[in-house]
Amino acid sequence: MTDRYASFVQSGAGRALVKRLGLPDPPRLRRHTPGDPLVPGPVLLGTAAGSRLAEPVTKVLTFAGVELRDPVAATDDPVRYAGLVYDATGITDSTGLRQLYDFFHPHARSLTPSGRVIVLGTPPAECGSPREATAQRALEGLTRSIGKEFGRGVTAQLVYVTKDGDAGTLTSLESTLRFLLSGRSAYVSGQVVRIGAGTATAPADWDRPLDGQVVLVTGAARGIGAALATVLARDGAQVVALDVPSAGDALAEVANEIGGSAVQLDLTAPDAPTRLAEHLAARHGRVDVVVHNAGITRDKTLGRMDPDRWDQVIDVNLSSQERINDVLLERDLIPAGGRIVSVSSIAGIAGNRGQTNYATSKAGVIGLVDSLTPVLRERGISLNAVAPGFIETRLTARIPLMLREAGRRMNSMAQGGLPVDVAETIGWLAWPASGAVTGNVVRVCGQSLLGA
Amino acid sequence: MTDRYASFVQSGAGRALVKRLGLPDPPRLRRHTPGDPLVPGPVLLGTAAGSRLAEPVTKVLTFAGVELRDPVAATDDPVRYAGLVYDATGITDSTGLRQLYDFFHPHARSLTPSGRVIVLGTPPAECGSPREATAQRALEGLTRSIGKEFGRGVTAQLVYVTKDGDAGTLTSLESTLRFLLSGRSAYVSGQVVRIGAGTATAPADWDRPLDGQVVLVTGAARGIGAALATVLARDGAQVVALDVPSAGDALAEVANEIGGSAVQLDLTAPDAPTRLAEHLAARHGRVDVVVHNAGITRDKTLGRMDPDRWDQVIDVNLSSQERINDVLLERDLIPAGGRIVSVSSIAGIAGNRGQTNYATSKAGVIGLVDSLTPVLRERGISLNAVAPGFIETRLTARIPLMLREAGRRMNSMAQGGLPVDVAETIGWLAWPASGAVTGNVVRVCGQSLLGA
Repeated sequence: MTDRYASFVQSGAGRALVKRLGLPDPPRLRRHTPGDPLVPGPVLLGTAAGSRLAEPVTKVLTFAGVELRDPVAATDDPVRYAGLVYDATGITDSTGLRQLYDFFHPHARSLTPSGRVIVLGTPPAECGSPREATAQRALEGLTRSIGKEFGRGVTAQLVYVTKDGDAGTLTSLESTLRFLLSGRSAYVSGQVVRIGAGTATAPADWDRPLDGQVVLVTGAARGIGAALATVLARDGAQVVALDVPSAGDALAEVANEIGGSAVQLDLTAPDAPTRLAEHLAARHGRVDVVVHNAGITRDKTLGRMDPDRWDQVIDVNLSSQERINDVLLERDLIPAGGRIVSVSSIAGIAGNRGQTNYATSKAGVIGLVDSLTPVLRERGISLNAVAPGFIETRLTARIPLMLREAGRRMNSMAQGGLPVDVAETIGWLAWPASGAVTGNVVRVCGQSLLGA
Repeated sequence: MTDRYASFVQSGAGRALVKRLGLPDPPRLRRHTPGDPLVPGPVLLGTAAGSRLAEPVTKVLTFAGVELRDPVAATDDPVRYAGLVYDATGITDSTGLRQLYDFFHPHARSLTPSGRVIVLGTPPAECGSPREATAQRALEGLTRSIGKEFGRGVTAQLVYVTKDGDAGTLTSLESTLRFLLSGRSAYVSGQVVRIGAGTATAPADWDRPLDGQVVLVTGAARGIGAALATVLARDGAQVVALDVPSAGDALAEVANEIGGSAVQLDLTAPDAPTRLAEHLAARHGRVDVVVHNAGITRDKTLGRMDPDRWDQVIDVNLSSQERINDVLLERDLIPAGGRIVSVSSIAGIAGNRGQTNYATSKAGVIGLVDSLTPVLRERGISLNAVAPGFIETRLTARIPLMLREAGRRMNSMAQGGLPVDVAETIGWLAWPASGAVTGNVVRVCGQSLLGA
């Protein structure tokens, strides 16, 4: 569970040695503590000619207490920025991409460690011409390259903002900009996030963005699930922590620590969905947020895999999510403004040796998000998934050393993520303020090299 | 340009040593030679209950001279298969995914070297229910994992076949099944190919699938472009080979060798599109296939990049493609049944350090395919892109040894691809028989680990 190499590198003596030998140099990532300012320094905001989001972005960031700078004033400026934000929605042709160079080139080396790069664009499918759609799609090549190039814990994202929701744009943008600028998104980089036209509700206090929400977390006894319960409770949620009966003691400990409740239930039992629905109805009358985190691995190559390994993995990781969604939705237990967040995996995106069962189940989770999002949108419920990469848990601690080291270092952060990084990302997607964010699959992988 | 390690491994003495030391073991890939049978052994065809493609697939493969086997007869069969083809279109729920296990598990180790795995599915967006869409999307996790697991040059693909085009399914399927089973697709693995409802025309002779077609290849003087000219001419095309005047000698050599014509033109010149259009109109009256292969790299990190490097790369790799398409289409020089194939790159998908300009241009090419496909479909013209991974060329020969070795080995084939592999893939997309294949971005990367 500990990355001893990173601890060594981050010590004074280790740092000097590693630099001299040219070894990987995992930076200490900025993470979120309640009460932190959103960013630890000024943010430079640039705008392509004819862009449409500068005004709402300025409002959101100013309101959040961010010190904003202007590129014109900044040209000969030795200031170190905590973020570079660029509104590229005005770029309607590939020749206009030059404006990206003009903004980023002079400031490429001005970012503080764990700095943030955010480019805002228009979803290509909404563009008025193929030329505009092409240019807007090109932005992805830029942000993904910046994520790989800037180093020192800097993250880079592309955020596509719908043209449809202009009325609600300010509120719609706010939760995502806050998440991506903050230390909550420490291990999220190289991602494309889509903000649509859904309804978002800003919290009274941005340090308690889940205040009063009833949140179900499956697989909550340990690892990512335990971190989830802790983070969501810290952010104001009333957490219902669920796990299998055999993990009852660990589960009770988690629930007690956060002042939540514990439910022992095997989700693959035929009556599990109805029993869960009855419990939620009786105790809370509803569930605002469902986090499908429970998951198992049963690795074997396909030729050596017995059928139970296939069946169990598909059932726990995919089919049981479908059955629970169906029952909770049928019984109207998830109100308008509700959220469902599923846990997928990089293996579901890229496939993995020895994990045909797991990768199939996790690719299915992506299919679930794609196909159920339009249905849920009509009910005012958002649905998203996160896809963790290499996260330091009990499971990854068991991977043989050399493989583990490769997994840890082969990403833009040169280190594994922590369970809290996955939890913070799920938290953002669960906020009432994130209603405009639906249908996304967001990787929490430090921009792992692995992909499809 | 030579992979000495692979040559060594593929020699008798090298093979033994490599096995003993547990080093990477790049297999010798089966590649296409005209006159070859489609596959060097029998193919096992399995079907999920209620599937809809078994009949057309059986017809296509039987007509192509493939010896087909049935899984029921095959259970205790020591036969080695050259291909495993599975029609999964009948799977309508995640619990039905078990049928994949039942088919692949007993035969996972029965494939010959460079064997083929093809799973056929329904595009999730066309599925009748979220449950069906989820299960069909899950197929991608299986095929990508099989590609990483089976080794020995085995490729694995998922082919989504529209429900719309059932009338024309037989012809629509044929070109893609032939390509994927043959040695032409040696370095294509882990891909998702979509077959739509376009019009496909089978050739008189499948060994000359481009007979009589006028094909423009840009950047044809060397590397992938020269291989392209050669492969497309071998397949029957009348090739117009284009490159910059400074590459005139090499270009003339390529054109002479294949009996094509040479055009010296700088595509970034303001009058280039009209001059090219006039040349094609005067000499051929049309151009059936346009292959946008010309591309340059000018690598630097963004902070150290001068503006010319940005501008040149965007202009050559992206804007000039847009200008040429516009003029050729305006003047109606690409007839119905025409094809456009653009060359993107893995860097355009995943981003790359030191290549913000290149990755932006190549991501733009993907945007061009996405946005222009619907427009061209109405005119009966298909548009696709290929995204090469590590291909052995003059350019990659200059990469420092350790990086080059990493690039070569980090894929399911444990070796770099050859220019001919990219050329064969573009060839398939250019065939008159491939009219149902449009809007795809197909990686030619040996299933590189790198992705997004």
